[in-house]
Amino acid sequence: MAAPLQFWFDLASTYSYVAALRIEQACARASVPLVWKPFLLGPIFSQLLGISDSPFNANPVRGRYMWRDLERLCAKHGLSWRRPSVFPRSSVLAARVACAGATEGWGPQFVRAAFRANFAEDRDIADPATLSGLLAEVAVEPGPTLERAVSPEVRARLRANTAEAMQIGIFGAPSFVVSGELFFGQDRLEDAAEWAAQHTC
Amino acid sequence: MAAPLQFWFDLASTYSYVAALRIEQACARASVPLVWKPFLLGPIFSQLLGISDSPFNANPVRGRYMWRDLERLCAKHGLSWRRPSVFPRSSVLAARVACAGATEGWGPQFVRAAFRANFAEDRDIADPATLSGLLAEVAVEPGPTLERAVSPEVRARLRANTAEAMQIGIFGAPSFVVSGELFFGQDRLEDAAEWAAQHTC
Repeated sequence: MAAPLQFWFDLASTYSYVAALRIEQACARASVPLVWKPFLLGPIFSQLLGISDSPFNANPVRGRYMWRDLERLCAKHGLSWRRPSVFPRSSVLAARVACAGATEGWGPQFVRAAFRANFAEDRDIADPATLSGLLAEVAVEPGPTLERAVSPEVRARLRANTAEAMQIGIFGAPSFVVSGELFFGQDRLEDAAEWAAQHTC
Repeated sequence: MAAPLQFWFDLASTYSYVAALRIEQACARASVPLVWKPFLLGPIFSQLLGISDSPFNANPVRGRYMWRDLERLCAKHGLSWRRPSVFPRSSVLAARVACAGATEGWGPQFVRAAFRANFAEDRDIADPATLSGLLAEVAVEPGPTLERAVSPEVRARLRANTAEAMQIGIFGAPSFVVSGELFFGQDRLEDAAEWAAQHTC
């Protein structure tokens, strides 16, 4: 059986959006099981780079490239794209919801919907009202789910994911981990899936 | 006729090595003319990031990933690889030689040989003796060529290339430029070649 592919993503990350909308097809094509791993880039950028903003804002030359690149990548992969009016948006609450749903059927659907809200619809994923709407879309009761998302248990799960990301050596998103091998960047999704298909477990 | 693809590289850059050894085949496959553009990352990192070292040294977590990734990429593309004992090596003299040969038949051969020396043979490309050997390998008279490489004219050409890279918005290497469109990273070589094939000039 193929090794599972862990998809490490931050809902505030532009390139994670492209990966999130492509990953299920890529894993299905390679017959590789997929594990969704929401985490927060903020603490990692703070520790590794000493910045409290996106590296794309801290380095505007690189940022300008990224915005153009996203237009091209979305066109290439047939994904909707609207440059968000706020970047990066706080993804803490959305990531907690993703953690609450990580092992439930609606989790991946919610993640895709939240990425689309942020990067195709310019909606504020930091706003509980937006998240309620997205949860209703994926047929989950918004009230109890948002309550669970801010429970000590789910908060701890997100903190543990971020700590695990640091321990693995993740420095950006999206990242893919297969049998201890790290692949960084949405361009490497196919390499990671191929690695998983070739390394059974 | 397909738009030409500019290949912007620094001979000290690990990912540029992979791109340099793959690019002629990629351009030939897409029937795209290739233009070699040697430049120096140092002044760009200094200006954009305020560092005087490689970002892979400044951020060791990212550096650790890069070294492992290079092993995998070289294995994938059938390229020789030996982690250099010094990184980054000064690429100024080698880049001047590449500028001297940029429009001559031996230029691309020299660039490939210099990349292999740095990243497959762990040889010091900052040493004029190494470069003499590489020039002899590509059937150019080392003495006069090295003399020409340090002439005011060729020094100015390298400075102009680096200034042009900054003006374009290049922030790393390898980069590919096609009709004003910038593609960053060796993973995007095929995207750049496809763009060139689809945009005639």
